[in-house]
Amino acid sequence: MRLKGFQKLTTTDEALRIWMLNLQVQKPKIVEVPLQEALDRILAESIFTQEDLPRFDKSAVDGYALVAKGTIGATQFKPATFQVTEIAEITPKQVRQVWTGNPIPEGADAVVMIENTKRRDGNLEVWLPLVPGENVSKKGEDLQKGECVAKVGTRLNPYHMGLLAALGYSQIKVFEKPRVAIIATGSELARAGAPRKENQIFESNQTMLSAMCREFGADPVSLGIAEDDIDEISEKIRSGLQECDAVITSGGTSVGVHDLVPDAVNRVGKPGVLVHGIAVRPGMPTALAVLENKPVMILSGNPVAAVIGFEVFARPLFSKMLGMSKEELRPVLKAFMTRKVATALGRKTFVRVRVIERNGEFYAEPVSTRGSGAISTLTRSNGFVVVPENREGVKEGELVPVRMFGPVQEVEEHV
Amino acid sequence: MRLKGFQKLTTTDEALRIWMLNLQVQKPKIVEVPLQEALDRILAESIFTQEDLPRFDKSAVDGYALVAKGTIGATQFKPATFQVTEIAEITPKQVRQVWTGNPIPEGADAVVMIENTKRRDGNLEVWLPLVPGENVSKKGEDLQKGECVAKVGTRLNPYHMGLLAALGYSQIKVFEKPRVAIIATGSELARAGAPRKENQIFESNQTMLSAMCREFGADPVSLGIAEDDIDEISEKIRSGLQECDAVITSGGTSVGVHDLVPDAVNRVGKPGVLVHGIAVRPGMPTALAVLENKPVMILSGNPVAAVIGFEVFARPLFSKMLGMSKEELRPVLKAFMTRKVATALGRKTFVRVRVIERNGEFYAEPVSTRGSGAISTLTRSNGFVVVPENREGVKEGELVPVRMFGPVQEVEEHV
Repeated sequence: MRLKGFQKLTTTDEALRIWMLNLQVQKPKIVEVPLQEALDRILAESIFTQEDLPRFDKSAVDGYALVAKGTIGATQFKPATFQVTEIAEITPKQVRQVWTGNPIPEGADAVVMIENTKRRDGNLEVWLPLVPGENVSKKGEDLQKGECVAKVGTRLNPYHMGLLAALGYSQIKVFEKPRVAIIATGSELARAGAPRKENQIFESNQTMLSAMCREFGADPVSLGIAEDDIDEISEKIRSGLQECDAVITSGGTSVGVHDLVPDAVNRVGKPGVLVHGIAVRPGMPTALAVLENKPVMILSGNPVAAVIGFEVFARPLFSKMLGMSKEELRPVLKAFMTRKVATALGRKTFVRVRVIERNGEFYAEPVSTRGSGAISTLTRSNGFVVVPENREGVKEGELVPVRMFGPVQEVEEHV
Repeated sequence: MRLKGFQKLTTTDEALRIWMLNLQVQKPKIVEVPLQEALDRILAESIFTQEDLPRFDKSAVDGYALVAKGTIGATQFKPATFQVTEIAEITPKQVRQVWTGNPIPEGADAVVMIENTKRRDGNLEVWLPLVPGENVSKKGEDLQKGECVAKVGTRLNPYHMGLLAALGYSQIKVFEKPRVAIIATGSELARAGAPRKENQIFESNQTMLSAMCREFGADPVSLGIAEDDIDEISEKIRSGLQECDAVITSGGTSVGVHDLVPDAVNRVGKPGVLVHGIAVRPGMPTALAVLENKPVMILSGNPVAAVIGFEVFARPLFSKMLGMSKEELRPVLKAFMTRKVATALGRKTFVRVRVIERNGEFYAEPVSTRGSGAISTLTRSNGFVVVPENREGVKEGELVPVRMFGPVQEVEEHV
């Protein structure tokens, strides 16, 4: 029994370093999917253009292709006049009609917009002067043959998909999603929708952690609830390792007699638990382990602590397991603290805040710590202010970076 | 033929107002889904707690429940001593062992952590003084019975899902996703993967717009490519109206002879096109229409103009059609412009920028306008700077809000 609390807390950076040292994260497998299904997937190959884009000099407007120098000095009252032709190559005395996107005929170097012209007796009057290149999209102006347009490890957004479609891709190679087993532990937990005993509470971390995995692009596999029984917990961890690429547990990781998860992990194999007790608040009882060269993340049963443990350790891990070129960061903005928050020296602290916009400025309002472990502090927030270990808090009025996980509220209101 | 350009451009605000005036956006249908599948869906009912959370005073630690005033002055050298009992109601001379999450027995008002105690001869020595309420999570501390925890119209994030699970929900009512027909038009378009003629380009807007719909939570239905033929376009619009809640077209909306979409829309019914020609750059040829009380959004074939048209008009529309309580805004941060950008007075201009972080400050680098209509300007960017109609640009060094659509790059690099 470890009843004396954690002997030593490890900083988040050091914990992550130790974990990664003991883990060879495999490059994920590559799978080809229809481009339409590739949104938010991670590109498994760098994409180079096979040709210039546009492929040819083309008209950017509806009008007439011509040689610009023939229009010098032209006005509506003193138009330049050209012969209209349909041939492939024009002379300086000729024009040829083109529509937006049409190739520019040989010899031409500009296009006059149709509204600046008049047809008269098979000829065309041009009412204004043009410069060479005017209204022409040059070959290769957008992309030149051989340019890298998207690097391996990029998360595909709709614009990447549009670009890949424009390059002719209908299938695309992406990385397979890592499968993550999620195990809730605790005899006090009842399944939502099922009957519960007087002293039981509904299990919620599994639902939440699954959604967090899914949101990040991993594939969660719920392995249900294990009671506070070391054999049952070990058994579920073994199934998780068999079925999945990573295991996350929730609950049973503090230092009481019911906190069996670290021991259950160590019973399954080596090296087992590498770090237990993190200098982060909330999230102190988090532990990190490796089994069968797969990461095992042992999160607190406290929902907010579980969220912070995931935020700190799952995001960098999953970025690697997804095949991303670097850790994907949340959007960050800077906001003025509406009041001071004191934090413990030596602990990295995640302050939940609600960022609002007032008169064009962003303000971060710390969300009431009434029930500080309570998940409602997260649903009332839209960002985290991360106070580093070497600080004792943030001051009222201080401009701080906020990691956003929800939209900014334009008008303050209490849910 | 409308060959003289747009007679009049309508501002984005005015265009949106006219469109919405002519459209009664229906409240979407309600559908019940398993909670696990509700990520990013829009809540169709406000959620009120049916009981306090926690449901009872419970211990926040592993330890012993007791009456705090019996510990006054206690130290490791002069402990307070209590009788250990298992009964349901304790007296000021008794303690009862509790684990994290256990109900506090009647009579007790605090919990001493196990590491601050010692068992001796059936008694318990307590080594430090406690205050009433210490280490106790009070009934209703997180949420009180009858509180609203999530309002109708909320987009569910993982934390909402955790909270709903904690309240016992296994099914949840969300709004049905609007179905959006997407039609690409243009005889110059070839399907990706199919053979294409010398002067054809691969269709890309349909793929991109579908992904944009999906990203926002709508359900895209691709209706393929229509050639520049008014009957074919009208026919596809009719199918779109039959199958879907909204129609988006791309291409054929400028003022040339091949720009048949507005006429095709008007041929289908009334009121048809309400606005054509918007004071926005890019995106000027955008048109907005209503048919059968369904919105029809007529976007440019130029991919960047289509993206901006969608940004300006589809986001507010879809927020309503999804049942959201208000328009969902992109995350915004403030960054210093790295160089000046000139814009046209009277046009709202969307400048594509790449926001980078350097020494803790954000900088917005305008993305080269080489090939300004080119989709690669979007894949190289991560945000928009929106310059309003009454400004002629932004200055170098100016601090401007940026609507972010991708992660900030910590180190500058060129793709």
